[in-house]
Amino acid sequence: MDDARAESDPYFSRTASREEIGARIDPVVWGDVVGPLSQRDLDQYRQNGFVVLPPLFEPSEIAELSEQAEKLATRRSAVPALEQIEEPDSDRVRSVFRPHKDNPAFAALASDSRLIERARQILGSDVYLHQFRINYKPAFAGREFSWHSDFETWHVEDGMPRMRALSVVVMLDPNTTDNGPLFVIPESHRHYVRCAGETPENHYATSLRKQEYGVPSPTALAELASRSGIATVTGAPGAVLLFDCNLMHASPSNLSHRPRTNAFLVFNSTENQLVEPFGGRQPRPDFLSEQRPGL
Amino acid sequence: MDDARAESDPYFSRTASREEIGARIDPVVWGDVVGPLSQRDLDQYRQNGFVVLPPLFEPSEIAELSEQAEKLATRRSAVPALEQIEEPDSDRVRSVFRPHKDNPAFAALASDSRLIERARQILGSDVYLHQFRINYKPAFAGREFSWHSDFETWHVEDGMPRMRALSVVVMLDPNTTDNGPLFVIPESHRHYVRCAGETPENHYATSLRKQEYGVPSPTALAELASRSGIATVTGAPGAVLLFDCNLMHASPSNLSHRPRTNAFLVFNSTENQLVEPFGGRQPRPDFLSEQRPGL
Repeated sequence: MDDARAESDPYFSRTASREEIGARIDPVVWGDVVGPLSQRDLDQYRQNGFVVLPPLFEPSEIAELSEQAEKLATRRSAVPALEQIEEPDSDRVRSVFRPHKDNPAFAALASDSRLIERARQILGSDVYLHQFRINYKPAFAGREFSWHSDFETWHVEDGMPRMRALSVVVMLDPNTTDNGPLFVIPESHRHYVRCAGETPENHYATSLRKQEYGVPSPTALAELASRSGIATVTGAPGAVLLFDCNLMHASPSNLSHRPRTNAFLVFNSTENQLVEPFGGRQPRPDFLSEQRPGL
Repeated sequence: MDDARAESDPYFSRTASREEIGARIDPVVWGDVVGPLSQRDLDQYRQNGFVVLPPLFEPSEIAELSEQAEKLATRRSAVPALEQIEEPDSDRVRSVFRPHKDNPAFAALASDSRLIERARQILGSDVYLHQFRINYKPAFAGREFSWHSDFETWHVEDGMPRMRALSVVVMLDPNTTDNGPLFVIPESHRHYVRCAGETPENHYATSLRKQEYGVPSPTALAELASRSGIATVTGAPGAVLLFDCNLMHASPSNLSHRPRTNAFLVFNSTENQLVEPFGGRQPRPDFLSEQRPGL
């Protein structure tokens, strides 16, 4: 990245040896689009950076998605290896990216109005699918995800300019305290941790199994968590978690006998189109970051 | 172990290549000693293998124990290295054994009547301290403990004949869903998993950081957990968990910004004195297994 761009980038990161907690300069709820979320949902989302909605899907819909997710994890030959990520310490499937590309059930989910309308309402514009993945967290074998802000990576590695995107998590299994649920730091989305260090070439090849760059320090995390604590996100199958692209989140290993399979759909505002990655490296492959709108 | 002893040992384990789920032949609540536990507490303990009691200690007592625990973890020169165990992937202190040997606060805890009376009531006899350790689970750094039954190890490696012992856990920090709380499998104490494999010489030298032998398979764990699920044990500082020596338990890594320091006191019945280890190896060092009664 040239110096002029660095100076004008409010969300520069991984450019110095020292970490720093900066300010968010973007709204959280962009407003002006009517939708099904209540004012209370919106207020919670604005305040905490996330909101958990009771099941929006019928048990039969979740059963079908679960079955399809299972197929995508086991029928390896049908999925290009690049889009199927393994656990860091085993060959169990950790994530499958782009499940909607060849699978009608997930294709339908990607354009499901129950999700799109809520995403539009928060982002205050039309939206498109920036990334879609299934995280499996298999029983006994699913390993932790370190604390991180998605936006930091999407900005540095994918060229997402502003904080105008969100994750929509559809729970395909019960998310319980013992099967590796999501942890979030409420209100952390209001701050921006500029991570220390740099970005290796092709960072995604390792970071999807275990992230080591773009990871905030224990000191920064403790500072954020000491303000509002940590929330454990649990929910029934079909429940939906909406969380801001800049919310600090993590999840522990799954020590339980039940998988914790969740579908993660990332919607970006069509007014927040990707540009050249701010970290100066080549953009990541399309399966991590759809370059063009088009559901 | 000679063959005759193996045949007469109802709790043989690590003698075959195949794992097996056998039956417990001992009572859970041995009865006939009056104490402070209610009938409801005792029934819960008998049924589930554990009970969580609201704080039995004053905040000032817990503050003092916490301060002393911190000292035992940091003043390394005062503690023989053997009794101070580090995390598997860092030099952070994972456990300190025998904290009562040189520390008046923990010595007082080891003979505290609030704990002893409850242990006597469950075990139906006088008791002695079989093992005492502090598990620190430091913020961000405390790593998981795999699923295991303590009794299996105490029987095979220490020579504890029968299931007539229990762990008393005094919470020195809040135990929350995000800081690596104990998970237990209710009712698992009624079964005995004979683990496959053998016991390496000096197994304790590695197992205290990360246990790899005497560990039940995912299949056995899933069978136990599919009956009664998994319980997440949370509690306020000063809360006390009592759990049976044969209850399957584990705990995840601590991803939070707060430590989860717990004192674990294991009381054994004086009518269940240790004998030669059933696994045929040398007994483990005294800090893991006090050979003689004597509080």
